[in-house]
Amino acid sequence: MVQRVYRQIQESALEARVVIATSVSQVDSIRSQLGSEVVIVTEPERRDTFPAIALAAAYLCDRLKCGREEPVVVMPVDPYTDMRYFETIAQMERAVLDHTADLVLMGITPTYPSEKYGYILPLQDGGCRFVEKPDAARAEKLIHQGALWNGGVFGFRIGYLLGLLSQKGLPDDYQALYSVYGTMRKISFDYEVAERASSIAVVPFHGVWKDMGTWNTLSEEIREDIGQVICGEGTDRTQIINELDIPLVALGVKDMVVAASPDGILVAGKNESSFMKPYVDQISRRPMYEERRWGYYKVLDYRAYGQGVHSLTKHLFVGAGKKISYQSHACRDEIWTIVEGTGTLMLDGHTRNVRRGDVAYITAGMKHALCAVTDLHMIEVQIGDELTETDIIRHDLDWQ
Amino acid sequence: MVQRVYRQIQESALEARVVIATSVSQVDSIRSQLGSEVVIVTEPERRDTFPAIALAAAYLCDRLKCGREEPVVVMPVDPYTDMRYFETIAQMERAVLDHTADLVLMGITPTYPSEKYGYILPLQDGGCRFVEKPDAARAEKLIHQGALWNGGVFGFRIGYLLGLLSQKGLPDDYQALYSVYGTMRKISFDYEVAERASSIAVVPFHGVWKDMGTWNTLSEEIREDIGQVICGEGTDRTQIINELDIPLVALGVKDMVVAASPDGILVAGKNESSFMKPYVDQISRRPMYEERRWGYYKVLDYRAYGQGVHSLTKHLFVGAGKKISYQSHACRDEIWTIVEGTGTLMLDGHTRNVRRGDVAYITAGMKHALCAVTDLHMIEVQIGDELTETDIIRHDLDWQ
Repeated sequence: MVQRVYRQIQESALEARVVIATSVSQVDSIRSQLGSEVVIVTEPERRDTFPAIALAAAYLCDRLKCGREEPVVVMPVDPYTDMRYFETIAQMERAVLDHTADLVLMGITPTYPSEKYGYILPLQDGGCRFVEKPDAARAEKLIHQGALWNGGVFGFRIGYLLGLLSQKGLPDDYQALYSVYGTMRKISFDYEVAERASSIAVVPFHGVWKDMGTWNTLSEEIREDIGQVICGEGTDRTQIINELDIPLVALGVKDMVVAASPDGILVAGKNESSFMKPYVDQISRRPMYEERRWGYYKVLDYRAYGQGVHSLTKHLFVGAGKKISYQSHACRDEIWTIVEGTGTLMLDGHTRNVRRGDVAYITAGMKHALCAVTDLHMIEVQIGDELTETDIIRHDLDWQ
Repeated sequence: MVQRVYRQIQESALEARVVIATSVSQVDSIRSQLGSEVVIVTEPERRDTFPAIALAAAYLCDRLKCGREEPVVVMPVDPYTDMRYFETIAQMERAVLDHTADLVLMGITPTYPSEKYGYILPLQDGGCRFVEKPDAARAEKLIHQGALWNGGVFGFRIGYLLGLLSQKGLPDDYQALYSVYGTMRKISFDYEVAERASSIAVVPFHGVWKDMGTWNTLSEEIREDIGQVICGEGTDRTQIINELDIPLVALGVKDMVVAASPDGILVAGKNESSFMKPYVDQISRRPMYEERRWGYYKVLDYRAYGQGVHSLTKHLFVGAGKKISYQSHACRDEIWTIVEGTGTLMLDGHTRNVRRGDVAYITAGMKHALCAVTDLHMIEVQIGDELTETDIIRHDLDWQ
């Protein structure tokens, strides 16, 4: 989704600088998808959309030296849209520049009385009423009254948001806001800003808009099952995505979403899938699959033994020409077995060429780096008493 | 199940020799559960119950030197029963010895008009009528007429079955029958023998009998979910077994069975789960988890690269005092990393002690064996152009 939206912005007539606000866990994945030059504002932790947008506004002003009068349009990465969407964003920019209102929203023309979206009902006095997830009858009535879906797209001047921060007694410079970020209230931009704004305008969008942000909405767009899936006897109106390397058999599964990935398995009724967040929040475990600047890793196995000893096994893929940076680990040994490809390995200052079948034994404290010459796969076995992604000491290295 | 039934037979008053008929893929697992002294007749391939029982009868006569007049009771390993079941089997043995009939069946007193079982209706002429999986109304009527569930338990003299083989033009000696096994028709003992028998008797059983042979019946007996399972919002009347190391979230899942294991994932309505066989038969892949005499292995990763090269990664557990036999592989190198425990490794005639952190590089053709001193875990990385369980050459080895 981020690749598509990024490409669409570049193909549009917008002369926009793109800044991505995201959490720290997504940074490597986004850089590997969009390139290392993309500008990212990293949220130190997840605190909903108002803190995230406020931090990004402060970053634009302090770090990118944008003026307080410059317009910003905030857009989510979830929806699938056609190019007219970006023309509407240009209209929103003009509305901000023209001082039409402090806050400019995009309203999506509803195609059916969905119970899943928020509605914006423009009022006669120029204001708006917001209605979250109405039932079908209420939605029908709202549409009849001229209500639009809230697309979560907001336009404003940077100074408007920084002013709001000052009003709330919060710092409006980036570094200070970053340092109090963990104390900010978890609240959405809709609740904290849009529903309280006194000067508001809505720009309607009539084109294709499909929300890919929940399984419930995404599954309407998926035509075929993905992965090793066998649907039999009585399976109907069900979307299955299987990213695991094992087969999935579905019998008598109706109106459901089934998603299996290295991080976990979801089996959910389409309606109930929208309410998964609190259950998923109960799961606190290390990531099992992550994209990195250099490729990706997948955790294959994790075991705890006696005396606090653990082993962890990963499959690593390093793209041709990519590098794993020079690093060492305090609490673990690593045994690397190259299973495909060729590369150059640096161990404590000495380089050697490696290829399929080669094994490297990297003890705790030993500095190591890898540069893949061709696409390279390896199995990494970690042994130690603390096996975390944070046990990593970076070292400088100038590859010849 | 096999452990419980085996123990119950030993605790019962039956003075029976137990012989297990099973397929080759189950042999190691059964020996590791019941001990290496258990007598197993191995079916060269799956061909339903008539060929399997016939082969076992020939084995009893030829290899175990049982007389043709000796009684045999064939019982499936699936049902959960109380000890009275084994008293009924003793009654069946007496009925065979008393020449009550050529074939003696066990009839389970029905507790409800199940649509899932076969029914035996004893007729006035001393014969029986068999009705497979009737609908509820027909089942009700059958029970009213005195029908019993077919428990799949059969008693006969060995010579009776060997005689049937001769009548059908099939050999009745073990070696000859084994060699034509692959040409025998796939047919159940019920259809081939019971439904055609002219001399038949039914011994009723009134005790506890629960079929654990299908998910549908098994799930009635499972009270709690097993493994990392989070049930939320609207999940009801559903049994979940998760043997994977990743969490499973179930929302709005009703009247279903969900089973996730290293071999695959099943998501099925309880009714539809009985019809999974043809779909599972479509899956032809290597086993992902197997119990062995020495412990177990679990496949973690399998990849195919260019030029026919593959890599396969396993986690192996070898119990203290157990041995992996002396062997070599023609088509692959193996890299073993010991992640826990201690043992003795034999490589091309040389022994060395190994412990956590040690790595062994076993090239194609190199003879290797392992004896675990303590419980031992290792990660095995295989690299080669053919990675199968059958690429194994056994060698003699006399550990000192």
